[in-house]
Amino acid sequence: DPKLKIFALNSNKPLAEKIAEAVGVKLGKTSVDRFSDGEIRINIEESIRGDEIFIIQSTSAPVNDNLMELLIMIDALRRASASTINVVIPYYGYARQDRKARPREPITAKLVADMIVKAGASRVVALDLHAVQIQGFFDIPVDHLMGAPLLADYFLNNGLEKDAVVVSPDHGGVTRARKLAEFLKAPIAIIDKRRPKANVAEVMNIIGSVDGKKCILIDDMIDTAGTITLAAQALKDAGATEVYACATHPVLSGPAIERIENSPIERLVVTDSIKLPEEKRIDKLLQVSVGPLIGDAIKRIHENKSVSPLFKNRFH
Amino acid sequence: DPKLKIFALNSNKPLAEKIAEAVGVKLGKTSVDRFSDGEIRINIEESIRGDEIFIIQSTSAPVNDNLMELLIMIDALRRASASTINVVIPYYGYARQDRKARPREPITAKLVADMIVKAGASRVVALDLHAVQIQGFFDIPVDHLMGAPLLADYFLNNGLEKDAVVVSPDHGGVTRARKLAEFLKAPIAIIDKRRPKANVAEVMNIIGSVDGKKCILIDDMIDTAGTITLAAQALKDAGATEVYACATHPVLSGPAIERIENSPIERLVVTDSIKLPEEKRIDKLLQVSVGPLIGDAIKRIHENKSVSPLFKNRFH
Ligand SMILES: Nc1ncnc2c1ncn2[C@@H]1O[C@H](COP(=O)(O)O)[C@@H](O)[C@H]1O
Ligand SMILES: Nc1ncnc2c1ncn2[C@@H]1O[C@H](COP(=O)(O)O)[C@@H](O)[C@H]1O
Repeated sequence: DPKLKIFALNSNKPLAEKIAEAVGVKLGKTSVDRFSDGEIRINIEESIRGDEIFIIQSTSAPVNDNLMELLIMIDALRRASASTINVVIPYYGYARQDRKARPREPITAKLVADMIVKAGASRVVALDLHAVQIQGFFDIPVDHLMGAPLLADYFLNNGLEKDAVVVSPDHGGVTRARKLAEFLKAPIAIIDKRRPKANVAEVMNIIGSVDGKKCILIDDMIDTAGTITLAAQALKDAGATEVYACATHPVLSGPAIERIENSPIERLVVTDSIKLPEEKRIDKLLQVSVGPLIGDAIKRIHENKSVSPLFKNRFH
Repeated sequence: DPKLKIFALNSNKPLAEKIAEAVGVKLGKTSVDRFSDGEIRINIEESIRGDEIFIIQSTSAPVNDNLMELLIMIDALRRASASTINVVIPYYGYARQDRKARPREPITAKLVADMIVKAGASRVVALDLHAVQIQGFFDIPVDHLMGAPLLADYFLNNGLEKDAVVVSPDHGGVTRARKLAEFLKAPIAIIDKRRPKANVAEVMNIIGSVDGKKCILIDDMIDTAGTITLAAQALKDAGATEVYACATHPVLSGPAIERIENSPIERLVVTDSIKLPEEKRIDKLLQVSVGPLIGDAIKRIHENKSVSPLFKNRFH
């Protein structure tokens, strides 16, 4: 039987520790650092010949460094005769560049998938991909996990589902809002942004009733937090009593933290798919861990059991 | 006839300008910048359908960013129906990771080659690859240019070849020293470092006579400048009148500049394969441009003429 080993790269060691704990193993011994000129140096400090390897790496910022760490690690493991190389990518960078929206655009999400496969990965475990179609960019098995049940747990455990409406901040996110609403047994509402004329400010139409209700906004990621904080204000203006927000991936770049601090959002619930520096861990923000979820998936893969359906049906 | 177009990414725009000038075209219109979260955004601002494209990009530091810019640009050009995508890489990063020197090491130079081919490159133009074998990592044509004739020109034009010995700073660089010595019609010497016992300082044996001579050290790249500055001191101690040094690639990381300043090296001649920030452009350093050399190569590729033999035989 091939031995299960988990290796963490540099993007998210705390999550990797939690995953290893959930699986009941110690993290494999590696050092991943830099040569003087900035090139990545990888040292795998134990034999892995014939082993079943799981690499934990989010391709969050610095995205290019984290991606190259991942590719170089896959290369090293393949050349060292690993039996399988399973790549766990809790946050998949470049996911928004998943199509040509304008002429001569790259499709970087596909390029990244090609690189991961070419480097030698046998399987990918991902969490709430920005577009589910990214699964099809890979010619190897992809297990796609969902953060919504965990986010739902937070609201359920705190009795916040009572009198709540789940709100999608744009029409692209309605399916996601529907899923959370099912878990919470709550209705949904949608914010429909329209620009009446060019160079005129957008108008936020709220489809569904939010007056006198607790609103729970949901998105897959919060990046600069522009959309979510404007949505929160619009909900307040429309009579919402309290506004909560949740998302799987806390990208939180640029003005995000300031915007969240200054917004009517009571609490933003996210996961630890992305490690946050101290200065971004503000009081309003709560990170729930996907460590046990990913740990479960790894155990099931090791035991040759199916992964995705389990997680899809967990609350049905 | 497909139209020849040259696009510059961010690593070395001044060199790209010189190359375009040598070819007699203007650089293509693109913007390559970053989204708020650090992901690369590429905008090709003119049609390139059916064109013969040359991309100029050194994968110098920040190596992962520069490499990803290159890969994403290739992806965008391929999807926009470029007829051929020629990738000019004046400095090829990760070239030193070209073999497994220890167990479980990656071969990153091959990984990078695979990524470039997979992204969609049709041809690679490189300059003084750290190991010539890297050409074989590609399944597409590689034109391998040499900087030695340009470095030789500097010494010849300044009458410095008289009474000179060309010195290789280690036994791995003897072929390179031989080549320069032929251009200068000078003898060669070799520095042979040996560690007599573990934990005892290395001894520098000089093979060949340097007493009363002008020494010209040559290497392919100067990174932390440890080797070259110790070699220069050893040559001085052995009676060299003056010590010069030259190399194609000025990596110059970490303590390099300080070491060069404090060394007996009179002048370090390098090329502009890597763009240097202001603080590294010290008086002792001279950058000769490979712009005309690469420009010539591009014109010959465009005219379907052979490239490498021309440059190999230029001084024979
Ligand atoms: N890192 C990024 N930050 C902001 N916008 C991006 C990023 N990557 C891609 N995009 C753009 O976001 C749009 C896709 O977002 P979406 O409509 O939410 O799928 C496309 O127009 C992309 O060009
Ligand atoms: N960026 C780098 N900086 C310093 N050493 C490196 C770098 N990349 C690879 N190496 C190491 O340099 C050695 C190869 O150098 P060389 O013997 O000159 O070809 C190998 O042992 C590599 O592990």
